[in-house]
Amino acid sequence: MQAGFKPRIGVIGTGAIGGFYGVMLARAGHDVHFLLRSEFGAVAEHGLRIDSAVHGPLTLNPVQAYRSASDMPPCDWLLVGAKTTSNADLAPAIVQAAADGAKVLLLQNGLDVEDELRPLLPESLHLLGGLCLICVNRVGPGVIAHQALGSVNIGYHSGSCADQAGRMAVVEEAATLFRAAGIDSQAMPDLRQARWQKLVWNVPYNGLSVLLGASTTPLMADDRSRELIRALMEEVVRGAQACGHHVAPGYAEYLFTMTDKMPDYWPSMYHDFSHKRALELDAIYCRPLAAAKAAGCELPKIEALYQALAFIDGRNR
Amino acid sequence: MQAGFKPRIGVIGTGAIGGFYGVMLARAGHDVHFLLRSEFGAVAEHGLRIDSAVHGPLTLNPVQAYRSASDMPPCDWLLVGAKTTSNADLAPAIVQAAADGAKVLLLQNGLDVEDELRPLLPESLHLLGGLCLICVNRVGPGVIAHQALGSVNIGYHSGSCADQAGRMAVVEEAATLFRAAGIDSQAMPDLRQARWQKLVWNVPYNGLSVLLGASTTPLMADDRSRELIRALMEEVVRGAQACGHHVAPGYAEYLFTMTDKMPDYWPSMYHDFSHKRALELDAIYCRPLAAAKAAGCELPKIEALYQALAFIDGRNR
Repeated sequence: MQAGFKPRIGVIGTGAIGGFYGVMLARAGHDVHFLLRSEFGAVAEHGLRIDSAVHGPLTLNPVQAYRSASDMPPCDWLLVGAKTTSNADLAPAIVQAAADGAKVLLLQNGLDVEDELRPLLPESLHLLGGLCLICVNRVGPGVIAHQALGSVNIGYHSGSCADQAGRMAVVEEAATLFRAAGIDSQAMPDLRQARWQKLVWNVPYNGLSVLLGASTTPLMADDRSRELIRALMEEVVRGAQACGHHVAPGYAEYLFTMTDKMPDYWPSMYHDFSHKRALELDAIYCRPLAAAKAAGCELPKIEALYQALAFIDGRNR
Repeated sequence: MQAGFKPRIGVIGTGAIGGFYGVMLARAGHDVHFLLRSEFGAVAEHGLRIDSAVHGPLTLNPVQAYRSASDMPPCDWLLVGAKTTSNADLAPAIVQAAADGAKVLLLQNGLDVEDELRPLLPESLHLLGGLCLICVNRVGPGVIAHQALGSVNIGYHSGSCADQAGRMAVVEEAATLFRAAGIDSQAMPDLRQARWQKLVWNVPYNGLSVLLGASTTPLMADDRSRELIRALMEEVVRGAQACGHHVAPGYAEYLFTMTDKMPDYWPSMYHDFSHKRALELDAIYCRPLAAAKAAGCELPKIEALYQALAFIDGRNR
């Protein structure tokens, strides 16, 4: 990054995640442009507001808001905070809003969420993935509740960088952007490893919130669900290892203890379920299960959880 | 059984199971006495009615109905159709209604459901278990809907019989009683084997009906839940084998295909759940899991299902 150069940032899919990080970056002095659909009118009129238990109330008003990507100026960075289930549909907007050689960062959970989008993007675009450890929810048009945490771990997926050094330079650029906005961020040398690591949290809590209709506090208060959460976490770690990815010893325990201390939280999958939206089952369950199976590793409890969720998802829409 | 001797039969817990088999035996000419609690008034006034899709409407009126076991004449056979969760509470009633040397038949699913009751009964009483493959539900006071099937597999648990031949003679006596009333019944040489065999059906369908809020028809209509049902059945068979019990090859497939052809059915655990009664988790999940684990066999999908159900059960009461 050239000294003094301020990249232009676009946010594609201004939900809880895109809205939170976009506002944080804008408040840190960045030139941030937000693509909105149904919330355009509310945001253009009242701006974006984050009710943060960590940072206090944060507002951004006016917002550089757009109804259509074709109206956006060319952006050097694009943050995609939409559901993984809509990545292919978002490709045209991403291409329209991207400056030449832009970096596209998918702030999404799950494995290989970039694969569907990659062939729809020009080769000149860099594609990255970001794993957000954050308790955040959209509570109304342009209004986001931020309950806790906020860190983003970033890795490089694909693009024109010839070698790992070049890739890590792009990743570091992203991490530096976030850190300058007060957000803890780590450059990860291996995106798949980072994605598996994040699954240690998402696999148990996202699925069980839907299956058992329960947020984190009751899930952590019952002995049997605690055992199930631990067992699911262990299976994710086993799957990661089978796929050749190191997960630090004690990492699952760290996430478990962290969740014990967190405020009560409904994971995003529960909100998708309650709004009758498609659940992100491919990204969070199917692909990890398939990758582990291809490596000769069965993950039976995750598989049972996936099968139950697929049944629920099928009836919910 | 002496020629011409008609044993006196008592039914303890006249719900769907006790009511159905009691009425069938009474209509076949047996002297059947029914212990009732909340439904005593309705049954004393209107009798018992079975709306059977197999046999047509069946009624028994008047009914030899009792509010208290102390009023019942001494019975040679006692059929217990109550929930496994209430066996210990029923011991005094069983003892009061039992003739000397009576045979007590627990018409209940799950493993080792006799163990809690056995020490509460005199040694002179024989204790047997019966596995009912039947779609039957209580639909109102004294009214039972019988949708399909009806067979009873019976095995000997404990009592004064010195040898296997004596035990099988008692079991055959029971099977003969049922068969004479038009009910398919098999004498099983090993009760635990019979109980494991029945679990092949109960483990998937009972639990999933509660976990997924779904009866058999939708569970059998979805590819993912079908896979999960098959996987759970396979684990039960594996657990049975680890505990030294043979399950005939193709038996799981037989039950699966049978369920495909059955009318839509809500298993009893779903009714327990919807009436906020305790779920029979010990009998159907805990004890089989513990027995398999003691034999060195993990059943991870059943364990995950149990953990999820235990959470649900805890919140439901």
